[in-house]
Amino acid sequence: MNERISRKTFLRNAGRFVAGAAVGAAGSIALSADKAEGKATPWPWPYTKLDPEQARKIAHDAFYERGCCFAGFSGIVRLLQEQVGEPYTLLPLEMMSYGGAGVKGWGTLCGALNGASAAVSLVSDGPSSTTVINELMGWYTQESLPSATSNQYAETRRFAVDKGIKSLAQSVSGSPLCHISTTTWCVKAGYGVESPERLERCARLSGDVAAHAVKLLNDCALDQLRAEFVLPESTAGCLTCHGANQSVDNVAAKLQCPDCHGDPHK
Amino acid sequence: MNERISRKTFLRNAGRFVAGAAVGAAGSIALSADKAEGKATPWPWPYTKLDPEQARKIAHDAFYERGCCFAGFSGIVRLLQEQVGEPYTLLPLEMMSYGGAGVKGWGTLCGALNGASAAVSLVSDGPSSTTVINELMGWYTQESLPSATSNQYAETRRFAVDKGIKSLAQSVSGSPLCHISTTTWCVKAGYGVESPERLERCARLSGDVAAHAVKLLNDCALDQLRAEFVLPESTAGCLTCHGANQSVDNVAAKLQCPDCHGDPHK
Repeated sequence: MNERISRKTFLRNAGRFVAGAAVGAAGSIALSADKAEGKATPWPWPYTKLDPEQARKIAHDAFYERGCCFAGFSGIVRLLQEQVGEPYTLLPLEMMSYGGAGVKGWGTLCGALNGASAAVSLVSDGPSSTTVINELMGWYTQESLPSATSNQYAETRRFAVDKGIKSLAQSVSGSPLCHISTTTWCVKAGYGVESPERLERCARLSGDVAAHAVKLLNDCALDQLRAEFVLPESTAGCLTCHGANQSVDNVAAKLQCPDCHGDPHK
Repeated sequence: MNERISRKTFLRNAGRFVAGAAVGAAGSIALSADKAEGKATPWPWPYTKLDPEQARKIAHDAFYERGCCFAGFSGIVRLLQEQVGEPYTLLPLEMMSYGGAGVKGWGTLCGALNGASAAVSLVSDGPSSTTVINELMGWYTQESLPSATSNQYAETRRFAVDKGIKSLAQSVSGSPLCHISTTTWCVKAGYGVESPERLERCARLSGDVAAHAVKLLNDCALDQLRAEFVLPESTAGCLTCHGANQSVDNVAAKLQCPDCHGDPHK
């Protein structure tokens, strides 16, 4: 996509961000002045630069309230509630609690990604949210998580202290799916899927996802977002023939094909 | 879960539904009386019985606005906006547009399920939404879709008429994942994933999902919801040893194991 068009669209829709402050002066944003009573604030809702480290901490705590999807969403939107107020305060964060463990334990999309993506989509229009969410999903599949930052922060928190959990093993999920992500970590770390360590891993990962989403949003709003995600060769190679517009059994997905298909040409 | 507890919780939280009318008198619900200005309406937001057929039609049209996730959400929440008004009118439906094609084309969770689940979670507390969403997900994996009802309704709509699309082939996805659901249908129907027919299939399926979610919500609110979904033997058998609390490489998921693993014991 065209980054400049994306930025212009993002900024037009989040005009108060620019009018209020180019960088980091969230307090100067006055939102309620032009809001008609009883009417919805036009979408996308106005964004202000947030602190990724605050998002990380809120999401980590929120995981123990209502799970990973609620955490990914709350890490971003609770900050906006605090710093912007209305219309964010009118939104029940609990709405996004359904996505935990890949939607009520089904193991589909990672809830932290689902919740954070909903927050991204709340504050950015289609093209901008496509760029931000695609980068977030791609980063998630290739990053070693939970990050050292989350490990360091979280081991002093109550749950970790109570359970005697220190730094946790890291793994690269290769997939945005909960089942693959959690199982890959469990195998690497040697813990069961219902263990306190796995829960804490997902709490820390929720913090990582919320923090990274905020970083991407900040960058996008300031035209500093570089699209870095590249499909791994294992997927890109398959899509050369099987991609959405190709002629051979075409599919539309960015998942890693060998996860489920192995190498069907062998 | 205990259905009676579930119902009591649901009704306590959606008290106006009962106070206004046991069945089908949405207009008699007065929502704004006890809502403090400027404060968020407590979650879950009050529900009123909706018409599944209206949800089907709204979702089908909404698909062509902003994709399947927006459609699944709008089929329910736009009806609530029309019939209840605030607080639903304060919510930007576009927030849920990120989930199209399994989140921005990634092929993960079916967007219609994602959007409808968010709507379910908006109007029901944790235990109730767990029952409703689990039934919705299970139904989706086992139902032949798009339904005859959607096929019949939608073939008179503009897109289908313009493209010369009549009744479409039906398929059972076996999975709540977009990639598996769409590919299974494409193989059965003989159309490419970018074809107008596949788009229209997903528009009709979005209508089916929104309509079924409304049916389940209505049933849940009236204590008439029967939990019918049973994990297929192919999954239940694996989970006997590999389930969340079992000792052998345990996992947490309700996906169909053979989709990706074949039979690893062969």
